[in-house]
Amino acid sequence: MRSSAKAAGPQVLLGIDPSLRGTGYGILVLNRGAAMTPAHGTIKCPPKWEGSRCLARIAQTLREVIRQHAPTVCVIEGLFYAQNMQTALIMGQARGAALAVAAEAGLEIYELAPRRVKQAIVGYGAAGKVAVARMIQRQLGLAETPEPDAADALAVALAYTQSQGRLALTPLKRI
Amino acid sequence: MRSSAKAAGPQVLLGIDPSLRGTGYGILVLNRGAAMTPAHGTIKCPPKWEGSRCLARIAQTLREVIRQHAPTVCVIEGLFYAQNMQTALIMGQARGAALAVAAEAGLEIYELAPRRVKQAIVGYGAAGKVAVARMIQRQLGLAETPEPDAADALAVALAYTQSQGRLALTPLKRI
Repeated sequence: MRSSAKAAGPQVLLGIDPSLRGTGYGILVLNRGAAMTPAHGTIKCPPKWEGSRCLARIAQTLREVIRQHAPTVCVIEGLFYAQNMQTALIMGQARGAALAVAAEAGLEIYELAPRRVKQAIVGYGAAGKVAVARMIQRQLGLAETPEPDAADALAVALAYTQSQGRLALTPLKRI
Repeated sequence: MRSSAKAAGPQVLLGIDPSLRGTGYGILVLNRGAAMTPAHGTIKCPPKWEGSRCLARIAQTLREVIRQHAPTVCVIEGLFYAQNMQTALIMGQARGAALAVAAEAGLEIYELAPRRVKQAIVGYGAAGKVAVARMIQRQLGLAETPEPDAADALAVALAYTQSQGRLALTPLKRI
């Protein structure tokens, strides 16, 4: 289950914070305790685009990111709350487009709850997006504060690596 | 918007009834009033499979169906009710995987409510799955009654073609 975490070489992770109009993604490379972030960004889709066009853009962009950086693990922010059924359905569609690409590429896929991500990165489960972005900038030594959605994607990948420690209380389930 | 419906040659439609463990699909070819169904089936994913593996299978299968039959229009059954948020999220993921493939392949995508599909095919908006499957078998001249999910997929494509008539009261919106 955790073969890639035990591999001797660098571990390459893809973090995803999916949403229809602004999916955040980030590549995190871990090598002997050092972390690098060769790519991160937000897949922006204008409000006038049909939803299916956004889904295609999400799939295309993530496929290209995976092709360029060859991650072996994908960590995605879980959705455990939605304002209503319609929101859950739309969020689900964005997740589905992203997960299908990651699964087709053979990545191991894990999910982390937003609260657990914030707890791991900021030390406070209800932390705001700006606090997460600033902490990500500091922890990963980025020149600039990443955009909020990209920061959330890097945060979920980074929180996953912490959850992989030997003392992890709740082993993650592949989804 | 409806260029393919006005084209002189045969019109090829892909109907989809998405769900994580049993996505129905069907190809409907219309040519001078005659309908053919060169392919239909159900993308079955065992309960023990991780959800992301199902999404990959949905994407792969639909991509192959589109490659083989070259539909120009995709019609998908809309979800307007879910038992709870979790169900909506999972249904959304299956829809997202399917829609991303259709959109990447350049299909025009439309959505039809289940009630409207049943009304069009059976004449009764609350018709059961068996009634839909039998009516689809009869209307399309199939040798056997199709599986329920595949029948629903053919039904949504067939209902779309009826909604394309000049007297359609509610023009469909691309999604």
